[in-house]
Amino acid sequence: MRPWETLSSEYALDVPWLRVRRETCRLPNGEIVDDYYLWEGADWVAVFALTTEGTVLLVQQYRQGVRQFAWELPGGVVNPGESVVEAALRELREETGYSAAGGEIVARMEVDPPKATFYNHLVIAHHCRPAGPQSLDRTEEIAIQTLPPTELLSWIRQGRITAQSTIACVYRALDTLGDWSPGRP
Amino acid sequence: MRPWETLSSEYALDVPWLRVRRETCRLPNGEIVDDYYLWEGADWVAVFALTTEGTVLLVQQYRQGVRQFAWELPGGVVNPGESVVEAALRELREETGYSAAGGEIVARMEVDPPKATFYNHLVIAHHCRPAGPQSLDRTEEIAIQTLPPTELLSWIRQGRITAQSTIACVYRALDTLGDWSPGRP
Repeated sequence: MRPWETLSSEYALDVPWLRVRRETCRLPNGEIVDDYYLWEGADWVAVFALTTEGTVLLVQQYRQGVRQFAWELPGGVVNPGESVVEAALRELREETGYSAAGGEIVARMEVDPPKATFYNHLVIAHHCRPAGPQSLDRTEEIAIQTLPPTELLSWIRQGRITAQSTIACVYRALDTLGDWSPGRP
Repeated sequence: MRPWETLSSEYALDVPWLRVRRETCRLPNGEIVDDYYLWEGADWVAVFALTTEGTVLLVQQYRQGVRQFAWELPGGVVNPGESVVEAALRELREETGYSAAGGEIVARMEVDPPKATFYNHLVIAHHCRPAGPQSLDRTEEIAIQTLPPTELLSWIRQGRITAQSTIACVYRALDTLGDWSPGRP
């Protein structure tokens, strides 16, 4: 199998937080597709933040896309000039008021391989502790919850956590932590 | 916490497979946001298809968004008038040539809760068997692989499977089937 060849690319829409690109592509069979739309955006980061008590931090906020409140891992977009871990720790601090000394990148996932040009990064941070109040912008209102990992899994199984990124990241993090248990470094 | 109030909504872009909506919203604190962009699309479906040999079907194709080949669960969009299970079995048949008598919806996940209005559905299908050749459209070229569940998990852990939907759905399916627990080989 061979990749597609991109013959041209132009912006069809360029608005805050979203850029849509229209591409003309030549497929391996010679076929030309002249209306292939992609969407660009900054990379995402999600942080699986373990507190010093061995619980995991979740945030809840209103999500306009689905017109619902959703429980998710803390996270957001990686700003220009920021590393993935820096973005993870910044989002953690802003959304929850917790801080951590560092974090480890566990996975880089494709958000929507055929259509989206960007990635979602999973960071695990250990020994997170309260460091002050949340630091939210004018559009944000965020509730916080700490749950033991087993409870977190129950929330997914019960359908109380429904965001795909959070589901992928929670399983991936728990799978990576393996025989991790509270109290273990 | 209270939901946002949508004051107006209009299309900013309406092209094949992608509609972008611009909304004006009133936030609970009274703040007005007049440039909130959402993207619409048909719901997605992914099928965790277990063959009569106990293996799971994966498909590989070129993905223009990330300029790479990706291994994913079979799937696609739910067509108008189609049920989620019908879409899952149709996509399975088209992409792999395998068929199943039925399927079970295991989860409905939000693809991107703040920005996307649609969902990704996970269907588990048992006893899938070869039923003929693939049925692909002119833009598709798809390779097939069958893997035992443990091997599938290894592919995720090794970073050979990187699509977020597939990662979320594989863990969710294995967890539902009783084939996964944190740290299990």
